[in-house]
Amino acid sequence: MTVLKDQSKAGAGRTIISIDAMGGDKGPAAVVAGISHSAKINPNIGFILHGPKAKLEKLVDRRKNLAGRCEIRDATDIVSMEDKPAQVMRSGRDTSMWSAIESVRSGEATVCVSCGNTGALMALSILRLRKLSGIYRPAIAVMWPSRNPQGLNIMLDGGADIRADAKDLMQYALMGTSYARNGFGIERPRIGLLNVGTEEHKGRSELKEAYDLISANARRAEFEFVGFVEGRDIPGNVCDVIVTDGFTGNVALKTGEGIASLISDLLKEAFKYSPLSRLASVLAYTSLQRLKKRVDPRRSNGGVFLGLNGTVVKSHGAADATGVSAAVKLAYELAETGFTEKLAARVASAAPLDQDDPSEAKSDGETQ
Amino acid sequence: MTVLKDQSKAGAGRTIISIDAMGGDKGPAAVVAGISHSAKINPNIGFILHGPKAKLEKLVDRRKNLAGRCEIRDATDIVSMEDKPAQVMRSGRDTSMWSAIESVRSGEATVCVSCGNTGALMALSILRLRKLSGIYRPAIAVMWPSRNPQGLNIMLDGGADIRADAKDLMQYALMGTSYARNGFGIERPRIGLLNVGTEEHKGRSELKEAYDLISANARRAEFEFVGFVEGRDIPGNVCDVIVTDGFTGNVALKTGEGIASLISDLLKEAFKYSPLSRLASVLAYTSLQRLKKRVDPRRSNGGVFLGLNGTVVKSHGAADATGVSAAVKLAYELAETGFTEKLAARVASAAPLDQDDPSEAKSDGETQ
Repeated sequence: MTVLKDQSKAGAGRTIISIDAMGGDKGPAAVVAGISHSAKINPNIGFILHGPKAKLEKLVDRRKNLAGRCEIRDATDIVSMEDKPAQVMRSGRDTSMWSAIESVRSGEATVCVSCGNTGALMALSILRLRKLSGIYRPAIAVMWPSRNPQGLNIMLDGGADIRADAKDLMQYALMGTSYARNGFGIERPRIGLLNVGTEEHKGRSELKEAYDLISANARRAEFEFVGFVEGRDIPGNVCDVIVTDGFTGNVALKTGEGIASLISDLLKEAFKYSPLSRLASVLAYTSLQRLKKRVDPRRSNGGVFLGLNGTVVKSHGAADATGVSAAVKLAYELAETGFTEKLAARVASAAPLDQDDPSEAKSDGETQ
Repeated sequence: MTVLKDQSKAGAGRTIISIDAMGGDKGPAAVVAGISHSAKINPNIGFILHGPKAKLEKLVDRRKNLAGRCEIRDATDIVSMEDKPAQVMRSGRDTSMWSAIESVRSGEATVCVSCGNTGALMALSILRLRKLSGIYRPAIAVMWPSRNPQGLNIMLDGGADIRADAKDLMQYALMGTSYARNGFGIERPRIGLLNVGTEEHKGRSELKEAYDLISANARRAEFEFVGFVEGRDIPGNVCDVIVTDGFTGNVALKTGEGIASLISDLLKEAFKYSPLSRLASVLAYTSLQRLKKRVDPRRSNGGVFLGLNGTVVKSHGAADATGVSAAVKLAYELAETGFTEKLAARVASAAPLDQDDPSEAKSDGETQ
């Protein structure tokens, strides 16, 4: 799959992103507002928008800057947050989610963006796009605000699969390396394996096995393995990529969101407390907005599904226009760098890494 | 074990807390400053302080309010943060940590407080105090700032054991119930089982089994089971006690600390940014201090080891005087309410709960 241009009514010379208009908590209006914002900023994006045609036409027609840049594909059915993945796989053919993935499968669009049900989106993505050769468990890579120069760290798996064995965790390290290199421009990303302590003797047995496997492959796959890291290192600066299973990753992600949201609410309360503190909040407004922007999950919005023949960006279910626009920006950047192909090449070149004699395999020298 | 008074040189009529003076990152001076602060506030506490006698005498003599309320027990050796639990169990007899636990074992003190190496402290506590009858895995209960009226939630296991099967998780629910009842005065605590989603079909198989086991015992054990909860509910208000295995709990705890510390540092930066924001930080000082107090881990300092014949409070390794004093306050409250005995009675009465016919067992009606 390459970056396709001139392929649809969404406009000549543009990178086409496939958008699932439905399934987010805030409905299609927020999605259309988000892509409109992206279209305004970036003249090189075009969209294929999936959902109920009449409804979407009304919303798109109101946005002048989407004229000639957004093709609508009618899809009458919607995947709800409550739908079970297995059920959607059986009878989801008419949903906007299915249709949005189909545009990537057919090659009309390079990347798909959806705010919908994560489990269903992953199940349909695996069903329609298929896993990359050599990948047993695809993963969701998510961004964290961090103390690193790039301001963000990558963690995977954020919740695609509740299990991961040592080999899966090694593949997460490879995929995370590729993502950090293409997404952040870090030549030699530092990889950490999440555990309850940094000592080598600690933790579950599959983690010790993964430690050895990742360690053995660090040099050839051109990442630096910093060894075991702890929960506090996820937003820290000792590594750029944190590798863990999807159960632990999902709990960590939601815990971080919960704490950030509690502190934010308490901060608002604190500033309302007295006339003096209300005045302070006015004076500190700009500084506080900068802080908010730095830790705002909407700005780093977009979990990326890795390990498939095609790239899917999962936006937060509660994403508003700002969140959708951030996910579109990420999708565009991944499309432009040819991320899908580079990741596939990285995984393919690494396939013999866990064999008995890895010294036989050759690296093709390309940055993946 | 009951609350012992008049048993030592630490003073007549006082509740005696055994203190490991060594092993914290900030050394014995911070520990002595912390207990001195506690002694000032609460005239009913006495201390047995364990560590190198000459060194401790100097520190204690400088604090007038510790005169006649602090007995020193000489212990020449120290457990370092790097020492492995197995090694400490073999050759830790002369350490201040061993000596501090011994005071609880002998009944001289009701509760032990240590800032030292968690793994070693748990190993020595199990070795010397022994597990409560019927408990397979003791747990560390930790406090989280939360949206609940009590301002804090309890999570267990915070990292005593990286594994927990369904029966262990059920016992954590019982122990957490007892702790919430005695620590927060909540008559019928709400228990949540940590998972990656709130739907019953989600998550690992041992969690489904634990779900059924906890659910079946909720009525008799007088807690409310709210079912599966997610990471964001740990600092939330849907439950008072969050049950999980020690691996997941430890990752969540350290992730929460990491995010809170990142936000706190970014907030400080934001307030330094411009003359206006510096003025704002002065005006908002009181409000911000109140916020800091609310989420400060030093204020809710103290993980409690549950499931042993005796109560051990693990203070944060980096605890300063404020942190040590908070841990002493918690230790005193647990001693005063006869927590150890009530927890033991709760576990004993619940022992038949997971048998085939639980309806045969009788509750003794006491609040445990």
